[in-house]
Amino acid sequence: MRSAIEMFPRQEKLSEADGPQYLALRDHIALNIEIGRLLPGSRLPSERQFQSEAGIARGTIRQALSQLEAEGLIYRRDRSGWYVSPPAITYDPMRWAGFMAYVAEQGRVPATTTLEKSIRPATAALADIFRVAPGASLYEIRRRRMIDGRSVLVERITVDPALAPDLLSHSLDGSLTDILKSEYGVTVARNRVDMRPCALVRDAAEALGVHSGTPGLLVVRTSFDASGRVVEYDQEYWRHDAIRVHVDLTVREETIPPK
Amino acid sequence: MRSAIEMFPRQEKLSEADGPQYLALRDHIALNIEIGRLLPGSRLPSERQFQSEAGIARGTIRQALSQLEAEGLIYRRDRSGWYVSPPAITYDPMRWAGFMAYVAEQGRVPATTTLEKSIRPATAALADIFRVAPGASLYEIRRRRMIDGRSVLVERITVDPALAPDLLSHSLDGSLTDILKSEYGVTVARNRVDMRPCALVRDAAEALGVHSGTPGLLVVRTSFDASGRVVEYDQEYWRHDAIRVHVDLTVREETIPPK
Repeated sequence: MRSAIEMFPRQEKLSEADGPQYLALRDHIALNIEIGRLLPGSRLPSERQFQSEAGIARGTIRQALSQLEAEGLIYRRDRSGWYVSPPAITYDPMRWAGFMAYVAEQGRVPATTTLEKSIRPATAALADIFRVAPGASLYEIRRRRMIDGRSVLVERITVDPALAPDLLSHSLDGSLTDILKSEYGVTVARNRVDMRPCALVRDAAEALGVHSGTPGLLVVRTSFDASGRVVEYDQEYWRHDAIRVHVDLTVREETIPPK
Repeated sequence: MRSAIEMFPRQEKLSEADGPQYLALRDHIALNIEIGRLLPGSRLPSERQFQSEAGIARGTIRQALSQLEAEGLIYRRDRSGWYVSPPAITYDPMRWAGFMAYVAEQGRVPATTTLEKSIRPATAALADIFRVAPGASLYEIRRRRMIDGRSVLVERITVDPALAPDLLSHSLDGSLTDILKSEYGVTVARNRVDMRPCALVRDAAEALGVHSGTPGLLVVRTSFDASGRVVEYDQEYWRHDAIRVHVDLTVREETIPPK
């Protein structure tokens, strides 16, 4: 475990540092990640190793690790310890590219697994969104999406069967938007995206293999066709360390309203 | 406590419902919030009341409440129980309005408190952002912002003194962008916004009065002037139930690149 031992800070150095000791340990580990001594996916030394090799108190180690977890730099795997998080994927809600496209563009490998396809009666909320009668049949698709083999989101997609009859007989392990376009001639003219931070609990937490209560991001996308009909209603639950939302906005001539 | 008792579901009804009982209780409480029987800011019956008045098992009650908390519909106040969350504010990163403006536009009352103003040596990361030497002096401002009297975010703003000498002598309890414009003639031409879900820990959690580990949203805004200099670097930690990010995107002629 030479590489692991190298990464232990010297107790004296931590004590000399400004501010609380856990922050000095946090900075030390973060630096090891930054300079590539600890690679994405690699396992951190155990709390016990930190304690015995570097002589740091257990409480301090836990504080530092939970700070790094909060920042999304490291994550826990059940019973096997702490690992360096892979880099987050960048999602730009101002672009039209779907998951399969923007993940691949960033040099990563996207994958989709369909967990469940069903026909369900519309709840009051969904009836309102799709402008159908409450109780009307709607398609519901549950999928899990992965980046480089790691589960990053679970989603629940609702589609009106009137727009895409027999949709559930298709393989849905790719881009749904592509299937709607190629098989049904339905194209998206408007996207409304709502995002809110949330806690991942129960079903979503279980499907993503995280502890219930882990922070996440709920991304709700409502896609409309040119006539204003809702084409797709998609609720995505992301694990918090897998996504970074990026928007770049420049003052342009066109922001001045035309005369 | 007539109104509270009215909101208790009938045990038989929960048992008849589809799916797990905690979800039926969750739906029942969510409905009470939706129809306005439980108003924002009002206190929920205690777990004991739910247990004794409606005869629901403690574990089921807790599951339902933590589900509602994860969704941001209710929140805990230390030692005084569960309350209905005020509506989240909508933040549109494609607009230029600042906090004081967009909160007021939504009929809410914004407020800002400066917690700390200091001059600090630039860390490696900040030196890189501001293109100054590591260790160069930078202004750091810590503020807390409130909506209708409730703390919703804490932020750490960094400004280069070269751009705004003597900035810290001003009152910073309003819009910093306005001060930079009116006092120093510095205007923003480009905004880069990065958002990632996080856990609120230690300092941020304490300043917002939430438990360490509560989900939050980190919004990092980098503002540039027309010459590309960084004007403001702002790291905002939001409580998760206070913010909803909204982006609305329509296919327009102008998305076709000009010839």
